[in-house]
Amino acid sequence: MLKDCLGQVRLTTPLVHNITNYVTVNDVANVILACGGSPIMSDEPEDVEGITAICGGLNINIGTLHQSSIEGMFRAGKKANELGHPVLLDPVGAGASALRTGTAKRLLEELKITAVRGNISEIKALVQGSGTTKGVDADVADAVTEETLEQAVAFVKQTARAFGCILAVTGAIDLVSDGKTCYVIRNGRPEMGRITGTGCQLSGMMTAYLVANPGNRLEAAAAAVCAMGLAGEIGWGRMQAGDGNSTYRNRIIDAIYNMTGEELERGASYEVR
Amino acid sequence: MLKDCLGQVRLTTPLVHNITNYVTVNDVANVILACGGSPIMSDEPEDVEGITAICGGLNINIGTLHQSSIEGMFRAGKKANELGHPVLLDPVGAGASALRTGTAKRLLEELKITAVRGNISEIKALVQGSGTTKGVDADVADAVTEETLEQAVAFVKQTARAFGCILAVTGAIDLVSDGKTCYVIRNGRPEMGRITGTGCQLSGMMTAYLVANPGNRLEAAAAAVCAMGLAGEIGWGRMQAGDGNSTYRNRIIDAIYNMTGEELERGASYEVR
Amino acid sequence: MLKDCLGQVRLTTPLVHNITNYVTVNDVANVILACGGSPIMSDEPEDVEGITAICGGLNINIGTLHQSSIEGMFRAGKKANELGHPVLLDPVGAGASALRTGTAKRLLEELKITAVRGNISEIKALVQGSGTTKGVDADVADAVTEETLEQAVAFVKQTARAFGCILAVTGAIDLVSDGKTCYVIRNGRPEMGRITGTGCQLSGMMTAYLVANPGNRLEAAAAAVCAMGLAGEIGWGRMQAGDGNSTYRNRIIDAIYNMTGEELERGASYEVR
Repeated sequence: MLKDCLGQVRLTTPLVHNITNYVTVNDVANVILACGGSPIMSDEPEDVEGITAICGGLNINIGTLHQSSIEGMFRAGKKANELGHPVLLDPVGAGASALRTGTAKRLLEELKITAVRGNISEIKALVQGSGTTKGVDADVADAVTEETLEQAVAFVKQTARAFGCILAVTGAIDLVSDGKTCYVIRNGRPEMGRITGTGCQLSGMMTAYLVANPGNRLEAAAAAVCAMGLAGEIGWGRMQAGDGNSTYRNRIIDAIYNMTGEELERGASYEVR
Repeated sequence: MLKDCLGQVRLTTPLVHNITNYVTVNDVANVILACGGSPIMSDEPEDVEGITAICGGLNINIGTLHQSSIEGMFRAGKKANELGHPVLLDPVGAGASALRTGTAKRLLEELKITAVRGNISEIKALVQGSGTTKGVDADVADAVTEETLEQAVAFVKQTARAFGCILAVTGAIDLVSDGKTCYVIRNGRPEMGRITGTGCQLSGMMTAYLVANPGNRLEAAAAAVCAMGLAGEIGWGRMQAGDGNSTYRNRIIDAIYNMTGEELERGASYEVR
Repeated sequence: MLKDCLGQVRLTTPLVHNITNYVTVNDVANVILACGGSPIMSDEPEDVEGITAICGGLNINIGTLHQSSIEGMFRAGKKANELGHPVLLDPVGAGASALRTGTAKRLLEELKITAVRGNISEIKALVQGSGTTKGVDADVADAVTEETLEQAVAFVKQTARAFGCILAVTGAIDLVSDGKTCYVIRNGRPEMGRITGTGCQLSGMMTAYLVANPGNRLEAAAAAVCAMGLAGEIGWGRMQAGDGNSTYRNRIIDAIYNMTGEELERGASYEVR
């Protein structure tokens, strides 16, 4: 039950170590607090192992890479692997530059990653080695639609198997798979793409869900995706004349803050294939 | 027509590479999304050339310099110059420290800059080599007022010629010139100065306008200044009892998000000298 | 009188140099503007001395350390000491990693610090050399309650004497002492802990208060603590159905923006021991 996944986060207050970009870091921290977790940020190589050791999981987001933070990602990731903590990778902008694509691939190869969350263009860039990523947004040509859904589900299952982890590809339709089963999720609003960082926020929250639900991680990842999409719907319902993307950002985080397990269970729109 | 400048941004979704400070970076990303563009942030020297290559323009903001981001600015700037992309420079805090003044001057000398946007104290610091900048805010003694307007227009025209680019000096009265013509703009609210980063936001949005309007960049820069000031007026009109600068920030970005070309055309308050 | 402390900030617009973490930096800037000060951020070692020299005080926050920002902290701190500027230290996450604990201790030893502001677990980690800090939040076992208050007041007085500075320990009950006198403050709301960075914001604002009130710094520090807690109460009073931690963040900063000296005087809930 999705609601149990949410409940476990609120019950256990998972501590999440984030090595994330400086663009959306504040929203990532607030959404982790909103869902019931506790965030800590640290990317300095000399600091990350100590921080990871006191946390329950690690969220690696490559949105603004630095040479030192890349080293921090590997050191933290290795420590998290040693400790058996879940590690999530958000390959922001993979396909947009060689450094991003290459770093994301190396992280996938050298670390044991629990889950990857990205848009379809980023994931294709990781699989195919080159991509058509339009900056940090997915290319329209890649979009998962009802028409391309069957193919897309097959691609996501296959890629999850190739990566050896859970794969969450988010967009108009979200797909979350462990290689065998695939959740097809239809929550969310297109206007979420007009806010910076809803993807980063989801990655942070998903890490909290993975930490809090060690026995059913696929469902936990799917629950986080449903929660984010549902928060987008609830937040949109509270928009007033004159409100725009800045207020929408606040309302989405507010909706995560107030979301109950029952609300999630009722509002989640998904099928399992 | 200003409204055509805005319309071109919404039509073409210009991708803007930002090397900007970590204080206001989230607001810069959201305002670029709000106006119809698409932002990407990257300052790592090994990453910037690849990112600039897929973008349409480059926004360089020196609000929080690091040795590595300075190198990133030059590498990205040279690549943008090669590709003929517009490059905007926001010399935040020029005059406040030798590193800031010196870096801004070197960027102006070594790169082909399309537009500079700053407050009057920052621009004077660049021209005179030393300044009376009060931190990141303009010195009251430098302020452009109705009394000093004629002189200020002459100074801005002359400086635009000396820099060889468009110069936008923003404050109570905003001046935007290419060295020949000068837009004198009277939109905005004094309370905008009580929010961090309205200048940085304008620089990000102006870069999107410059990318989307290659044939009429002076007008595009002026349109961005009018849009920001008008958003300040619209946002202020929506303030309720108890609201302060944090809510005002959200309402300004919201106003950019909702602004139509007609609204901009009607609300813009400017003369050309 | 607390209201005079607030009045001095609004009257003198203290310029505050912040070397702070990238998670909450935007909120720190906006809260300093809200209370009547003017923020500038700079952590690059080559830049910090120039920036500190034009400011009135320095706020050092170790929330996201980098090797270069650590060097920046020492260089800025030494310059501020030379100039007789107040220096505040916020030891975010001391106890959570060796780098944080060690850096905070070295800063305390090598710089003349005017005030330290942290949660009880961070302060215990600095005193005892090791701590039970739960990430960036205080450990429940350490909490200052009515039951443990007498002990806690004695600990804070003793530690303030040991540090040779003002010590502000914030939590459900806030304690602010110069080693002789201790303000016991009961403003605030528990929900403030569900927003990232209310502590960082307070540290930024407290630095502005210290700069503006050189003759009565203990009272100024206490006034800043009361103002933050009261803003949490006022902001909470403005929450509507569906609002959560993101909106609450905005409302707290808004309350600081609108707070009058009379409102602070009337709303402050404290005793002196």
